[in-house]
Amino acid sequence: MTSFKVRTDLALEVRENMEENASECRGVSVHEEYREESEIRITRVVIETMNGARAMGKPMGTYITLEAPAMALPDENYHQEISRELAQQLRNIIPGIEQEFSIMVVGLGNRDVTADALGPNVVDNLTITRHMVKEYGKAAFNRNKVHMVSGLIPGVMAKTGMESQEIIKGVVERTKPDVVVVIDALAARSTKRLNRTIQITNTGIHPGSGVGNHRNAITEETLGVPVIAIGVPTVVDAATIVSDAFEKMMRQTGEEPIEIQDELLAGLGELYNMYVTGKDVDYEIKQIGHIICNALNSALEI
Amino acid sequence: MTSFKVRTDLALEVRENMEENASECRGVSVHEEYREESEIRITRVVIETMNGARAMGKPMGTYITLEAPAMALPDENYHQEISRELAQQLRNIIPGIEQEFSIMVVGLGNRDVTADALGPNVVDNLTITRHMVKEYGKAAFNRNKVHMVSGLIPGVMAKTGMESQEIIKGVVERTKPDVVVVIDALAARSTKRLNRTIQITNTGIHPGSGVGNHRNAITEETLGVPVIAIGVPTVVDAATIVSDAFEKMMRQTGEEPIEIQDELLAGLGELYNMYVTGKDVDYEIKQIGHIICNALNSALEI
Amino acid sequence: MTSFKVRTDLALEVRENMEENASECRGVSVHEEYREESEIRITRVVIETMNGARAMGKPMGTYITLEAPAMALPDENYHQEISRELAQQLRNIIPGIEQEFSIMVVGLGNRDVTADALGPNVVDNLTITRHMVKEYGKAAFNRNKVHMVSGLIPGVMAKTGMESQEIIKGVVERTKPDVVVVIDALAARSTKRLNRTIQITNTGIHPGSGVGNHRNAITEETLGVPVIAIGVPTVVDAATIVSDAFEKMMRQTGEEPIEIQDELLAGLGELYNMYVTGKDVDYEIKQIGHIICNALNSALEI
Amino acid sequence: MTSFKVRTDLALEVRENMEENASECRGVSVHEEYREESEIRITRVVIETMNGARAMGKPMGTYITLEAPAMALPDENYHQEISRELAQQLRNIIPGIEQEFSIMVVGLGNRDVTADALGPNVVDNLTITRHMVKEYGKAAFNRNKVHMVSGLIPGVMAKTGMESQEIIKGVVERTKPDVVVVIDALAARSTKRLNRTIQITNTGIHPGSGVGNHRNAITEETLGVPVIAIGVPTVVDAATIVSDAFEKMMRQTGEEPIEIQDELLAGLGELYNMYVTGKDVDYEIKQIGHIICNALNSALEI
Repeated sequence: MTSFKVRTDLALEVRENMEENASECRGVSVHEEYREESEIRITRVVIETMNGARAMGKPMGTYITLEAPAMALPDENYHQEISRELAQQLRNIIPGIEQEFSIMVVGLGNRDVTADALGPNVVDNLTITRHMVKEYGKAAFNRNKVHMVSGLIPGVMAKTGMESQEIIKGVVERTKPDVVVVIDALAARSTKRLNRTIQITNTGIHPGSGVGNHRNAITEETLGVPVIAIGVPTVVDAATIVSDAFEKMMRQTGEEPIEIQDELLAGLGELYNMYVTGKDVDYEIKQIGHIICNALNSALEI
Repeated sequence: MTSFKVRTDLALEVRENMEENASECRGVSVHEEYREESEIRITRVVIETMNGARAMGKPMGTYITLEAPAMALPDENYHQEISRELAQQLRNIIPGIEQEFSIMVVGLGNRDVTADALGPNVVDNLTITRHMVKEYGKAAFNRNKVHMVSGLIPGVMAKTGMESQEIIKGVVERTKPDVVVVIDALAARSTKRLNRTIQITNTGIHPGSGVGNHRNAITEETLGVPVIAIGVPTVVDAATIVSDAFEKMMRQTGEEPIEIQDELLAGLGELYNMYVTGKDVDYEIKQIGHIICNALNSALEI
Repeated sequence: MTSFKVRTDLALEVRENMEENASECRGVSVHEEYREESEIRITRVVIETMNGARAMGKPMGTYITLEAPAMALPDENYHQEISRELAQQLRNIIPGIEQEFSIMVVGLGNRDVTADALGPNVVDNLTITRHMVKEYGKAAFNRNKVHMVSGLIPGVMAKTGMESQEIIKGVVERTKPDVVVVIDALAARSTKRLNRTIQITNTGIHPGSGVGNHRNAITEETLGVPVIAIGVPTVVDAATIVSDAFEKMMRQTGEEPIEIQDELLAGLGELYNMYVTGKDVDYEIKQIGHIICNALNSALEI
Repeated sequence: MTSFKVRTDLALEVRENMEENASECRGVSVHEEYREESEIRITRVVIETMNGARAMGKPMGTYITLEAPAMALPDENYHQEISRELAQQLRNIIPGIEQEFSIMVVGLGNRDVTADALGPNVVDNLTITRHMVKEYGKAAFNRNKVHMVSGLIPGVMAKTGMESQEIIKGVVERTKPDVVVVIDALAARSTKRLNRTIQITNTGIHPGSGVGNHRNAITEETLGVPVIAIGVPTVVDAATIVSDAFEKMMRQTGEEPIEIQDELLAGLGELYNMYVTGKDVDYEIKQIGHIICNALNSALEI
């Protein structure tokens, strides 16, 4: 119906938009679990075929979404519960984690823009071991299994003049981790999902995703090692807000929206590169960064 | 026409909205200057009567707006030109500046939210002299005139539990500056005005203005000393974006917008406390902070 | 022996220096506990008389020191244990905490100098309730006891032009908390104590203490409400380092140090306002800030 | 004389220590200029032979030092003068700058430790062009000469698990700049030189230099492209402070220092990885970062 491309980085939201047209969903399996006590909903979308990928506008692979309504509220016990759940999902999806391996965690985004700082925030606080293992050996850790964990915060193109992909690729080629995990702030379709959803996928990061609009893919194909992406929607595209409000209104009045919408879209140009965030974005990003950091530390047993 | 209260902190934008109904504008004088070479437009709106204040929804007083299209672009020479112009306006509006006086510069806003960090940014970089004058005397400065400049960054209510006004008032009562200058990030109506407009007013800060929505006035009436406010629109209210896009569309299609709009407004509730900012907000806030800081230093001859 | 005034903000270190001359220690009681499992040592120094105060060079009152060798190492469980112990000590020393009260937590120091940023760090992350209680009432919290917690980060004189005391006093007079808790980074005598010791005292902050050398007292006498100070030694005065190394050497060689020392001291002038910190000061300050923040949240049941 | 290795990253200070033994100085030429009006002293030390390199403990190459006593004081006009002088020196020493070329500026150090944050600070504020040239072409710049400037902030090993060299090398291999400029905070011997000296060298960065003690060289040999290093002493090694104070004292008393010194040195172990900084380090680093950033922008005509 809509010619305007509503932007979302969440496979879950893409899937919801299709619900009426079940026929589009062949090649896409959806499995949902709900934890009563913790009110955490876990949805597993698997895009299994090229058809499914085309329909979804996302590459084939697994997309796991954790939704927790109170994710960004101040409740340390609840955060620990989400962290535990997230750690479990990470253990399942990060290849090679059951043996000893080396892993590079990359924090994408701009640390000077609050809503885009999630990635740098997580990597800044992660427990890093690679240099210790190299210097003192695994024996020094007094544990059965010691992963080599490194961290990278490449910065954004406006400040580096380079694509994140170029930087990551260069460092991967030199330090040769077995796996790369990329953390990024995403754009959602709905403000209701901001800062209470975490998406994990084994498909990496694709052009146009993320708040910073990476133009070069960060994937197993481009890096040569598996890439797991952890993303949290922290903004909504400004044009999406307008388009969605409009659509909702049309539905309520029962009008046929098509022609009018074209006029509307013409006016959205000035919203290009504009984002919507909430007032407490600093607090919420800090909380979720903490959750992801703890989950990674726990999954990596460091 | 519109029952939805479009939010703007700029007197200039309020005035623009009224243009069709000239009759509303009694008691409000507008004077505009344009500097050809520098492309800086200076508009002076004076609300002279209570009627004017009612029509504008803003208190009586002077509102000076500097608009400079390239304000946030990287051009140090141009920045110096805007700074000079701004310094001149500040010299005209800050009472007592021609003699020696004491002045407290207050940076409102949340330093951890990029679009709200303008005030803290300016005060962090301002030249502060009060403690030097108190310790070494004016003689140490080897100048004709030495103002006592102090700076305060009160923080936001979510992090202090106190109204900015309570903090400022307490510190004013104890340190007794002759004048207070308050710097704040504002909400504009139009994305086109973001980060290229500076408003100076001698009316202080009023409830509901600023990104952080101060609920208690910071004015001569509440503080007991004159309050000059310097504001820069760095965000647009998310509901305003939708409402404006809608209105524009209606105008283009020639439809009668009233009834439909009510439906639209009902859906805007979830946009409460949501803001729209641009992608380069960190860079732009830094540039404008620099401009205001230099203008204050220059006006205060420090 | 030494005419050079070795600087320490820790009552514990002052007391240690006196050990040889037990006669000086009248009016000073010392009680020590050691937790075997956690290796936390708790020393309670009470200066009971004016004579004791004169001998110690510190005001009468209680000084509790928690020493934990692994305080700044990455071990979340251990941090929780220290937090619990610290919370217990805070519950004992903060007057009025057993009933509902209002408390202002003040983070002294310069947030832009890593070793001095402990106070701002703690207050930035503390759970603040005063504005919530004021707006929604205690009922909204669904708890037996709800304290009103506010937070203040006054900044340092070089950036505000005002004494911290002036700012705090103004805000206390206006918002009227029942108790003030002040967090500050301290100077220790020994590098061995850096970032592994927490001192709590009910005597407040006195001129010359803290990294930032507050010149005006922040005490019950000056503020009109009880003041509890929580301090962590994060630096050693550079002159102290030299003086101590020298003394140690002299002791080892058995030489008579007095005359030579005078020559040495003459050369220490250039070390004025210089501080010694460790390389990992950023990590360590973050860990300890976390411990203190959790302890305060727990003691205040927020 | 001294078995303790006093640490300095400044060729100038090494050279000063040798002054008495002129014979050691063969193969090292020194040229000094003094600008009367600006009080800027420029010293050019060239290590011309392997013998000179051995005597100096530094690799063959050119070391230019700008000393300006008021470098860190608040005086924008003076800063511009130092920037101009620095830009001129950079134009002379950066190979290929007279033609169009591509250059990567690397900010070494830890952005969370004030005294070590100079490099990240400079790169954060530098004008970056590589991505613009790649996207819009040189024509878009409307200038005769457009360099491609990129920026990298690799972070420190404790937070990345990788040597800075590994990261830089990976990114250089992938993005192929013609020249690398590295900015770093250095250790000086004397507190008098802190934050008022800038050293430029075409020898790159060597193991053990810098506050962060890089263990792998960042040089033309290791990166494959010329490396210019810009360094500013922001700390003094704590052991050096003690050793120097001691030596000064011995000289004044006329004693023979040797045996005693051994005892002293034994006690310096606990000063390992401890640094001395001044109280205003945040302000001074900001000023000098600004000077270097402007000089680079000017030398690169961006």
